Amino acid sequence: MPVLVVKFGGTSVSDVTRIRAAANIIANCQKEGFSVVVVVSAMGGDTDRLVDLAQSISCHPARREFDMLLASGEQVSVALLAIALNERGVKSKSYLADQIQFVTDAQHTRANIVRVEVDKLFQSVAVGEVPVIAGFQGVSTDGEITTIGRGGSDTTAVVIAAAMDAEECRIYTDVDGVYTADPRIVEHATRMERISFEEMLEMAALGAKVLQTQSVEYSRRHSVRLRVLSSFKNGGGTVIDTEENERMTNLPVSAVTYDKNDAKITVRHVPDVPGVAYQLLGPIADSGISVDMIVQNVSVDERTDLTFTVPRENFDVSLKILNRSVPKLCKEYPPDDGKLIEVIGDDTIAKVTVVGLGMRSNVGVASKMFETLAQYGINIQMISTSEIKISVVIHVDFCEVAVRVLHTAFGLDAPKD
Amino acid sequence: MPVLVVKFGGTSVSDVTRIRAAANIIANCQKEGFSVVVVVSAMGGDTDRLVDLAQSISCHPARREFDMLLASGEQVSVALLAIALNERGVKSKSYLADQIQFVTDAQHTRANIVRVEVDKLFQSVAVGEVPVIAGFQGVSTDGEITTIGRGGSDTTAVVIAAAMDAEECRIYTDVDGVYTADPRIVEHATRMERISFEEMLEMAALGAKVLQTQSVEYSRRHSVRLRVLSSFKNGGGTVIDTEENERMTNLPVSAVTYDKNDAKITVRHVPDVPGVAYQLLGPIADSGISVDMIVQNVSVDERTDLTFTVPRENFDVSLKILNRSVPKLCKEYPPDDGKLIEVIGDDTIAKVTVVGLGMRSNVGVASKMFETLAQYGINIQMISTSEIKISVVIHVDFCEVAVRVLHTAFGLDAPKD
Repeated sequence: MPVLVVKFGGTSVSDVTRIRAAANIIANCQKEGFSVVVVVSAMGGDTDRLVDLAQSISCHPARREFDMLLASGEQVSVALLAIALNERGVKSKSYLADQIQFVTDAQHTRANIVRVEVDKLFQSVAVGEVPVIAGFQGVSTDGEITTIGRGGSDTTAVVIAAAMDAEECRIYTDVDGVYTADPRIVEHATRMERISFEEMLEMAALGAKVLQTQSVEYSRRHSVRLRVLSSFKNGGGTVIDTEENERMTNLPVSAVTYDKNDAKITVRHVPDVPGVAYQLLGPIADSGISVDMIVQNVSVDERTDLTFTVPRENFDVSLKILNRSVPKLCKEYPPDDGKLIEVIGDDTIAKVTVVGLGMRSNVGVASKMFETLAQYGINIQMISTSEIKISVVIHVDFCEVAVRVLHTAFGLDAPKD
Repeated sequence: MPVLVVKFGGTSVSDVTRIRAAANIIANCQKEGFSVVVVVSAMGGDTDRLVDLAQSISCHPARREFDMLLASGEQVSVALLAIALNERGVKSKSYLADQIQFVTDAQHTRANIVRVEVDKLFQSVAVGEVPVIAGFQGVSTDGEITTIGRGGSDTTAVVIAAAMDAEECRIYTDVDGVYTADPRIVEHATRMERISFEEMLEMAALGAKVLQTQSVEYSRRHSVRLRVLSSFKNGGGTVIDTEENERMTNLPVSAVTYDKNDAKITVRHVPDVPGVAYQLLGPIADSGISVDMIVQNVSVDERTDLTFTVPRENFDVSLKILNRSVPKLCKEYPPDDGKLIEVIGDDTIAKVTVVGLGMRSNVGVASKMFETLAQYGINIQMISTSEIKISVVIHVDFCEVAVRVLHTAFGLDAPKD
């Protein structure tokens, strides 16, 4: 029988009723004719509760112990789901990472997956059992419990799906698929039947929190077909795969996303000589802060402006780091016309992005995007593009309206009833 | 350095403040010059919460999964305690049963301990670390997670203390030792400095819930000195060992205990022929119900009365079983004088017991006990004795007064200030 890997997120197993519902979904997948393998996250809220406990004891909990602690969350949910499955007549056994040898390196709290042994899982499904595997956790080669980073259960599921050559990997979550825009903002947003890995990756990276980026990347590399669907209502969800079918390409733009979690920093009157950008951005990156969109203006009098974005939570730290670097730079390149190097921060921005494979064969997308925003008086502060997306930074107050007007302009609105 | 095993019960690690207090106690034990090895129960209330979750999904949760579920409780507490120890500068690592190979058979929910490997623990203490071990859980030879029965963490501690040839095994709990009587009932009850294994076993079996019986039994067999003490207030606690010192023997009675968890069943006019007691009690024992005190009166007209006690929670089931057996017996031995075999239940009883090694060399204890109770008009319904204890069954309403007057009569009251 073909193998189907199904994964349930925390909200899908957050209480007894939902655990029973998940057991029903699994039973139905079996009836479809699949050998079902299940991956589960901790019960919704459990991981946060454990994190709070640890942090109320220590600001920097010993990382080995932190992993030991967090891994217990998935142990609870796999056991309860296996109990629910057996109760409704579906033979089932739960497995921890060390029991199936889901092996990682020893980098606690962000371990890298080394290999997974699936013999035990194949044996389990061969006798009609449903193995229920604890997501998020791993075991190091010397028997230590590790975790692979928050949201890692998606990746656990995909890795197992790849190793078992599964027909499909279904991610059950609290949304019923991937939408052309956030339905809370755009009334006429529609669920996409299909989306390509490339588009999904752009969307995941841009704050559409449906799937963990790493899991999409892994799926693409190992050609695992993903399907995102709701554990609360019926429906086919959204398939994420490589086939570029008609739906994907007959419109230049597939979706409009936004992200309010960035802040913008501008350094003015930077000497326009090689190495200066590195002198400014290097120390920030070295602190583990991911510097995103970077824009440098054309030079005037050998001075230029450098603008970039950082996650809003790292905004203050980034400013502090810059204010240490700038005086050194001033000494090295004394301003000769009174134009001092200055740092300007702005955390009232939003990034709005249009994503679409169809963009590759359609040159008019950028100009249409800028024209639309201009029509509504929305000023563009920064622009960044890739082959299949265009992002603009605008004032945060215009975020929702920008998403709505772009959704309409690119023909994504659902037909009105 | 000599090894000290210390065990913390659920109430001693029930919140962050108490976990920090436990870490302080451990640090102080280290300062006493011990290599400290720690065993922990789940945070108070956690195991009950998990049991409730499982039972709201299934009346009879799959036992393998039930163990998987419950074992997560100790995983949380060991991790948090290790975090707290590291935070206060005491190097520490937590260990699960499978990580140290605390091996049991595969009888889920009541597994028997097969062996424990302590090499890793010796290595850990050799480098100045405090290993914190998850109590209650085990691992079967085929890698399944097992548990050894509620309250099993005491046994985990004692087994590890024996395997490491520990100087002492300290059980930190919410009482500061073993008392001559329940201090909630007897104002002048005093904490015993020492008590023998034999007395402790009788007391544990009789409802003094300080230590799990199995752990006392194991300690005696392996000569592990136990010490019960409070994690909330200072004091030397009570030492349980084999040395019979003066304190133990200069009084015939060491303590007065009681148990209100039994019920009494009398079967009247039973034919006094071999095999009848078995016909009545066999089916009850076969249902897993432990039949305790059994008394049979002298025979009158070849008929006798059989009285015994069962746990109150099994009272109804026991009556049902008897009411199936009795009609058969009536047929086999038809009553020839109108005296029908009848079953009488009574769940308003209490068992009051005096315990003491000194009893062995003092013949007057029983008569003094009966005399004292008679003086206060307390009727004795059943009597059962062993070498070092005398138990009587009385009406539950007189339980407290009986404990008090016996405590006074046997000279156990603390000197008045």
